[in-house]
Amino acid sequence: MRRSDVPTPALLVDIDILDRNIASMRDAAAALGVKLRPHAKAHKCVEIAQRIMAAGAIGASCATIGEAETMALGGIGGILVTAPLTSSDAIERLHRLLLRGADIAVVADHPASVAQLAAVAAGAGRTLDVVVDIDVGMGRTGCAEIPDAVALARQIEAAPALTYAGIQAYWGNLQHVSPFAERARLIAIQTERVRAVIAALTSAGLPPAIVSGGGTGSHRIDAATGLFTEIQPGSYLFMDSCYSAVSISENDNPFVPSLFVAATVVSANKPGRVVVNAGWKAFAADSGKPVALRGGPPGASFRFMGDEHGALDFEGGGGPKLGATVEFLTSHCDPTVNLYGAFHVVRGDEVVDIWPIRARY
Amino acid sequence: MRRSDVPTPALLVDIDILDRNIASMRDAAAALGVKLRPHAKAHKCVEIAQRIMAAGAIGASCATIGEAETMALGGIGGILVTAPLTSSDAIERLHRLLLRGADIAVVADHPASVAQLAAVAAGAGRTLDVVVDIDVGMGRTGCAEIPDAVALARQIEAAPALTYAGIQAYWGNLQHVSPFAERARLIAIQTERVRAVIAALTSAGLPPAIVSGGGTGSHRIDAATGLFTEIQPGSYLFMDSCYSAVSISENDNPFVPSLFVAATVVSANKPGRVVVNAGWKAFAADSGKPVALRGGPPGASFRFMGDEHGALDFEGGGGPKLGATVEFLTSHCDPTVNLYGAFHVVRGDEVVDIWPIRARY
Repeated sequence: MRRSDVPTPALLVDIDILDRNIASMRDAAAALGVKLRPHAKAHKCVEIAQRIMAAGAIGASCATIGEAETMALGGIGGILVTAPLTSSDAIERLHRLLLRGADIAVVADHPASVAQLAAVAAGAGRTLDVVVDIDVGMGRTGCAEIPDAVALARQIEAAPALTYAGIQAYWGNLQHVSPFAERARLIAIQTERVRAVIAALTSAGLPPAIVSGGGTGSHRIDAATGLFTEIQPGSYLFMDSCYSAVSISENDNPFVPSLFVAATVVSANKPGRVVVNAGWKAFAADSGKPVALRGGPPGASFRFMGDEHGALDFEGGGGPKLGATVEFLTSHCDPTVNLYGAFHVVRGDEVVDIWPIRARY
Repeated sequence: MRRSDVPTPALLVDIDILDRNIASMRDAAAALGVKLRPHAKAHKCVEIAQRIMAAGAIGASCATIGEAETMALGGIGGILVTAPLTSSDAIERLHRLLLRGADIAVVADHPASVAQLAAVAAGAGRTLDVVVDIDVGMGRTGCAEIPDAVALARQIEAAPALTYAGIQAYWGNLQHVSPFAERARLIAIQTERVRAVIAALTSAGLPPAIVSGGGTGSHRIDAATGLFTEIQPGSYLFMDSCYSAVSISENDNPFVPSLFVAATVVSANKPGRVVVNAGWKAFAADSGKPVALRGGPPGASFRFMGDEHGALDFEGGGGPKLGATVEFLTSHCDPTVNLYGAFHVVRGDEVVDIWPIRARY
């Protein structure tokens, strides 16, 4: 199949750019002296996780029990579920993963949750690694106070079926702060909190073996603190207009967009405007509008026009013809990936593979 | 399965409320003297289309070739594809549907598109009903000028394999205008345009047999003009916070929300706040925030906290416990449905069925 003939709207990933992004992050992690557990929330795809593992990652971070199941079935080890599992459904599915021998660790941020995990692991006749999730200013998940974190680590350590594995400290709210220096300044404040947590745990005889965190926007700053043992970025694989606009290191952004949405011109009845078959169901709309690239009129601006449509407004005549394909850079890669059933994998003008997005909602 | 035990995030539909909404729209269409071809873009689900057909609808409107395929495979007739099909892929799939004997009509808004449809229908040895799509002020798809519409109807009529079936006039941009009187005033302006198109076509010997349009917000106003032969609403099945806020007739909104997203409390470490496992991947974010209902603290306000998380902020103590289920009214039903693989069908506290959302992206 030719790239311009994919059934639209479609999610395209350029395999060569993807592989370069994978290699670039592997090299950065090696240079920074941290392990790499890239986040499967970005791709939800076994084929991509396998490429990442082949490039030397220690495992896959997962946001949901469904991602963990998909990765485990795909033979991926070193799974870390980075959000607390608390529903009876999630706990039951964790139980089944443990029975099947999955190589999985989880985070927890509450004593009730640790008690539940202890019962599940005991019931499965396994030991389960548990990482204490720390709230480092985002107010999302994690222990709010240092004594809470110490108490939780102690509770984990005391449970026969659990192993206290370390801590997680992730600042999702700081990943896109620009300029770089301001991001570094805000992260430095939270870094002191991580240092204090580590000190308190160490004083209590519970030094964390794992300190996990770091996203695409923060991982170089995080790793440079010397506190983190591993990073869990995901968006670097694909990039998007939001991440492309920020510097990843002081003056550099080594990651190149590999992910595109292909759409078809379905109406072209007005000068300076074409309408494509991609709207709110084809692009995540939480972080702004997509940008027309290949096939789009130069300088065109996108407008959402409902669930299935978007308009491209442009100056001057011409523009793509009825039936033509236009490719877009998304504004937010992760929730856009979650809208599709598969990646159409492209190299140049050819579709070379189709990879199912098995863990999408 | 109990309603509170569904794997979250999950899409719930209350079957009794759904059926009441279906009946209510059927009764309204009968009273207004228009036929009913409800839009499958809202549900993308054969089981729901079958219930709508059993209640007397003439068919299913579809936004994509994928929806048309799904409906046809589900035995649904009277399919009208309401957006132009222009890609080589969509045309090829239309060809296969014609070969399989699907009962399908399509819209067109361009001479090149009509030529393509004529070739496809001839190649399949079938006649294909084509409806002329008219731009009635939205600037999305449709013939821009009246002479264009007449010329297109004439071109369809002249093609041996095509049947000129009528016109489509849909004002998606006016569905949510409030108050009702202002919506009626704006629709009246566009109604004059529809009247002029019908008059020009009639003068040319091409009176439209079908005049299709009308959404959940406009169908009563549209039908009252006497110009429309059928309406194609979809959101009335489920409703959402945006549609619940507008009056459907002068002083009335007979449709009741039947659609909910169920999420689980995954963190509860701060007073006046819990965090649930539902964010931008669980709720379409184009039209605002979801509203916590069943299980949520009274008066709680939702904040998106990334792809997989949302916070519920509330006054006072208490609040739902870790692991508890909270249900939400979505802000925009159609693109939220498209995020899920299935409806969990509920009646009271029980899950009574699971219906796949086969035509999602």
